[in-house]
Amino acid sequence: MTTLLPHHDGSPLYVSELAPALGDVVTVRLRVPAGYGTLTAVRTRSNPDHEPEWTDARVVGSADGWDWWEAPVTVRNPRHGYRWMLRHESGRVEWLSQTGLHTIETLDAEDFALVANPAPPSWLYDAVMYQVFPDRFARSAAADDRPTPAWAIPAAWSDPVDPVMPARATQFYGGDLDGVTEHLDHLVELGVNVLYLTPVFAAASNHRYDAATFLEVDPLLGGDEAYIRLIEAAHARGIRVIGDLTSNHSGDTHEWFRAAYGHPGVPEEEFYYFTDEGNTTYESWLGYESLPKFNWASQELRRQFIEGEDSVVAKWLKPPFSTDGWRIDVANMTGRLGATDLNAEVRQLLRETMIQINPDTILLGESTNDAASDLQGDGWHGAMTYPSFTRPLWGWLSEPTNEPYLTADGDEVTEAWFFGQPVGGIPRYSAREFVNAVVRFTAGIPWRVRLGNMQPLDTHDTGRFATNAAPGTIPVAVGLAMALPGLPVIFAGDEFALTGADGESSRTPIPWDDISTAPIAERIDLYRELISLRRAHPVLATGGLRWLHVDEETVVFVREATDESMLVVATRGDADVELAPGLLAGATEAVELTGDATLGVAADGSVVLTADGPAFAAWSLPGVSVPQG
Amino acid sequence: MTTLLPHHDGSPLYVSELAPALGDVVTVRLRVPAGYGTLTAVRTRSNPDHEPEWTDARVVGSADGWDWWEAPVTVRNPRHGYRWMLRHESGRVEWLSQTGLHTIETLDAEDFALVANPAPPSWLYDAVMYQVFPDRFARSAAADDRPTPAWAIPAAWSDPVDPVMPARATQFYGGDLDGVTEHLDHLVELGVNVLYLTPVFAAASNHRYDAATFLEVDPLLGGDEAYIRLIEAAHARGIRVIGDLTSNHSGDTHEWFRAAYGHPGVPEEEFYYFTDEGNTTYESWLGYESLPKFNWASQELRRQFIEGEDSVVAKWLKPPFSTDGWRIDVANMTGRLGATDLNAEVRQLLRETMIQINPDTILLGESTNDAASDLQGDGWHGAMTYPSFTRPLWGWLSEPTNEPYLTADGDEVTEAWFFGQPVGGIPRYSAREFVNAVVRFTAGIPWRVRLGNMQPLDTHDTGRFATNAAPGTIPVAVGLAMALPGLPVIFAGDEFALTGADGESSRTPIPWDDISTAPIAERIDLYRELISLRRAHPVLATGGLRWLHVDEETVVFVREATDESMLVVATRGDADVELAPGLLAGATEAVELTGDATLGVAADGSVVLTADGPAFAAWSLPGVSVPQG
Repeated sequence: MTTLLPHHDGSPLYVSELAPALGDVVTVRLRVPAGYGTLTAVRTRSNPDHEPEWTDARVVGSADGWDWWEAPVTVRNPRHGYRWMLRHESGRVEWLSQTGLHTIETLDAEDFALVANPAPPSWLYDAVMYQVFPDRFARSAAADDRPTPAWAIPAAWSDPVDPVMPARATQFYGGDLDGVTEHLDHLVELGVNVLYLTPVFAAASNHRYDAATFLEVDPLLGGDEAYIRLIEAAHARGIRVIGDLTSNHSGDTHEWFRAAYGHPGVPEEEFYYFTDEGNTTYESWLGYESLPKFNWASQELRRQFIEGEDSVVAKWLKPPFSTDGWRIDVANMTGRLGATDLNAEVRQLLRETMIQINPDTILLGESTNDAASDLQGDGWHGAMTYPSFTRPLWGWLSEPTNEPYLTADGDEVTEAWFFGQPVGGIPRYSAREFVNAVVRFTAGIPWRVRLGNMQPLDTHDTGRFATNAAPGTIPVAVGLAMALPGLPVIFAGDEFALTGADGESSRTPIPWDDISTAPIAERIDLYRELISLRRAHPVLATGGLRWLHVDEETVVFVREATDESMLVVATRGDADVELAPGLLAGATEAVELTGDATLGVAADGSVVLTADGPAFAAWSLPGVSVPQG
Repeated sequence: MTTLLPHHDGSPLYVSELAPALGDVVTVRLRVPAGYGTLTAVRTRSNPDHEPEWTDARVVGSADGWDWWEAPVTVRNPRHGYRWMLRHESGRVEWLSQTGLHTIETLDAEDFALVANPAPPSWLYDAVMYQVFPDRFARSAAADDRPTPAWAIPAAWSDPVDPVMPARATQFYGGDLDGVTEHLDHLVELGVNVLYLTPVFAAASNHRYDAATFLEVDPLLGGDEAYIRLIEAAHARGIRVIGDLTSNHSGDTHEWFRAAYGHPGVPEEEFYYFTDEGNTTYESWLGYESLPKFNWASQELRRQFIEGEDSVVAKWLKPPFSTDGWRIDVANMTGRLGATDLNAEVRQLLRETMIQINPDTILLGESTNDAASDLQGDGWHGAMTYPSFTRPLWGWLSEPTNEPYLTADGDEVTEAWFFGQPVGGIPRYSAREFVNAVVRFTAGIPWRVRLGNMQPLDTHDTGRFATNAAPGTIPVAVGLAMALPGLPVIFAGDEFALTGADGESSRTPIPWDDISTAPIAERIDLYRELISLRRAHPVLATGGLRWLHVDEETVVFVREATDESMLVVATRGDADVELAPGLLAGATEAVELTGDATLGVAADGSVVLTADGPAFAAWSLPGVSVPQG
């Protein structure tokens, strides 16, 4: 049984204003189990300008066995951290931060945090995102008329993906934007409402992360006109569209790079890090010469690329394109080289420009490992990041694998990597380790930004989760992506039951012809049901999060708001969980929403949850009663 | 019994170069217990420019039951973090960071870290510091001839300290710099080798943190000439001297502030944050109007105060003063206000100037809470900070107290504060919580910077440790200040067995007349012995740190180097500890250095340590054998 503990998080149940301005007084609330003992003081401890500031909390009332405390916090810094101090009659002192309850002092980095920078549009929190890799999604008839470019190795739609260089980057299926437009109804049926397209600019590869220009959509995709058709058709269906921009580097065929390469003295030479007098050697992404790295010390690069209404960043947000935001590739390395770190300047300037053009847009940054240092709410609204959800999820719900796979050069590797980490394949996590990892990698991020973190099972850069999923765990994984705080993202093809061992072989063309066959139809139904759960119940988007129970196999948590709460059980093995009386209110009124599990309420008020695992189940509960002081 | 675990830290046993330059390849070593199982891979994981980079380790040999692995790490950023990955034959993966061994991934902020910025002088690591508050240390005969200033309330040397305003700030004992000079032999006898003086500039208070100028030593202290006499006499005895400078604010009697106050348009107005057109309202330290806050956006302020050879910072490092460094007051808030954060610029510029004048100087910043974010090695060599040693030490070794005390306004407070925290007095920590707090608040700091963190039992801003020390714990506390990694600091008067409940009442004049009486003579002997331990055994300054055993009452650790190791037992209650065979090599050759405790080695190699607590004991052991690859 889990003991009842004081709780606070960044959700509206506990924070009066999620988008405060500097100087605003925000009311923060703490709930404490009624039987927790006599508290002689409850206080907040903020740290404005790095010097502690305290406020006293007072009890505003009790409901459902919880006492609610309330305190004012004046927002003094753009990221304003705070924690709770609870003092017992015995003299015992406890601290509550985003890592939980502690008897010793806690770190500033783990504080709860208010963010006084401009907030993202609220639609970010209603979003369920669908990621499309254009070359592999769908081919319109017009694609047949386009010549295969010189760099490409043509492939038929039914050809297997070849993960070995040079095909790895140049195998060309010819998917295009009108192909996407033709299948928008599939997105509507799934229930997603944001389309994220990996790059659409002309390049010399199938992935197009080596942009040749940022000013024009690749004619191979149908050009600007096809992009406009797609966006208009998506918007007409209530689907927003975001693009993908690489701020760390361009391709070596980029017009800026071509102007500067071998041409000392031209204005564009300062856009890159040339290391010789003749402008022929230069810094590049991980040493790949085809991906020259941008030098953000250049004011002219900033002006052309990210700053102001004539910039690249602005162009695509404005009519006739009117995209709804950007996902930034290699955001983590952008502006960073050796002793130089201009990352904060770039991300802040980028967002300022977006606000200037259209504040109703979102900005996400790729940062595939620990992203906390860049995610304090001053630029990125969230990150494409893996250690806070995706990797721990794989660790918990996958089968171990030691199958050899092929490297980019075609060598067979028997020591498998895991998301770019040479750790011998997928690690084996317990449910407890899954939760510990989620807590560890979200504790350093303000709640508001955490909600914007992309929460995919996989992406175009990873294997597909289904490849190694333990039998029966796919509903658990998809359910958690929808039910935990964060932005659910479906990589197109997951709903088609596609597999793929790594980021290359997972870029499989979508088998549209098989959409009504097993197991695809069933998988699509699963996605539709769980996406619908998320969309129909806003508490999954913005509600608070309390972990109620964690053991080796099973996780139980509740998302909470005043209108509705949702109880969630996710388990790999069989679950038989007893929740202590008082831990969860309203269980007698629980309405099962999805999954095969049983919920019973004992005479003493304890709640018993059982399931034959793997299982994902959710129940709707009455909203939380919050006394008003 | 503690199990044997892989170990690494930032000390020379494990890191080939503690002061690398960017681009250098540093060899890092990991020791793994021989019986730890079959490791199929050991790797380092760095994160240059926020993108992971891996190197393979190889076994270079075994010694004393440990296998030593070695890997190259190329230093790519000024703070270059790295961690270890260990992969077992079973597939199990472990991560080793500054928070220890983990089965789930670890945070970037907890990585071990190399620092490529200029290193502090090596004498910082040999230092035992002695802190003097000039008004209360000693009075020379010349002081009798000086008139009491208008702001002061004169006090005789034997008068009790009055902690209530206005006497709190203006009670004036008239200690002076020649008084310090006259007692330098006391410092020599104690064994300290760095003298840290709180401010010596003219001001309108006894503490002088409200500087009226930075250009001249207070005539009440004997002026510039007395300062020169003191420094020369100290240097002649091998004692270095550092000053104290407030970079966050000046006093409202400061010449810059007087020039600007009420005088719009003068050059100095940009040095402060005036908030009205008439320059009569302004930002100040915590709202105290007598302490106007500096605005570091002013380039002219930078030029006059911290930048270049004509600055204040430079002046006092140059002859005829030739001080050996600075402790910076309120370093944590410097340059920070609302949305502005210029702290990094200020600390970096300050250090650059010091290097320009004399690189053989040290720079410490006051940051009394979690200092990690400012302590990445780009400016401060260490911090005056309390959560990583001082506060946990009090928590472990004090008696709880609920005695009422007086506020600055003379109100009686029954809910005691603790180091400025309204938490109801001293918290009650176990030895385990003490160690957890030390680990938590040092894990975010590169080893090299951690060694520079001041490690006092108390300072001029806190109560004195002895006031609430549990019986018999003072040797334990002093011993730990000397034996744990960090810069030992003795606040003058502690060795005189002085007490004081808070930062005001602890500023007691030194009772020189009683130096040979009990309990002072005995306390001075204790300090002399334990300072001597530190000074005579460099392993306590720069050796590695392995925690060998922690329970509710007792802490056992070893400091390790190739020349010598030192085993330390610190306990509040009785200790009876058994160290597993292999955990500690060379115990049969242990030589007791201090303390009442017994060490026995059993036939199986386990080491048994017993003591009647409280106790602090240390043994010299042979140095660690490191196989050379």
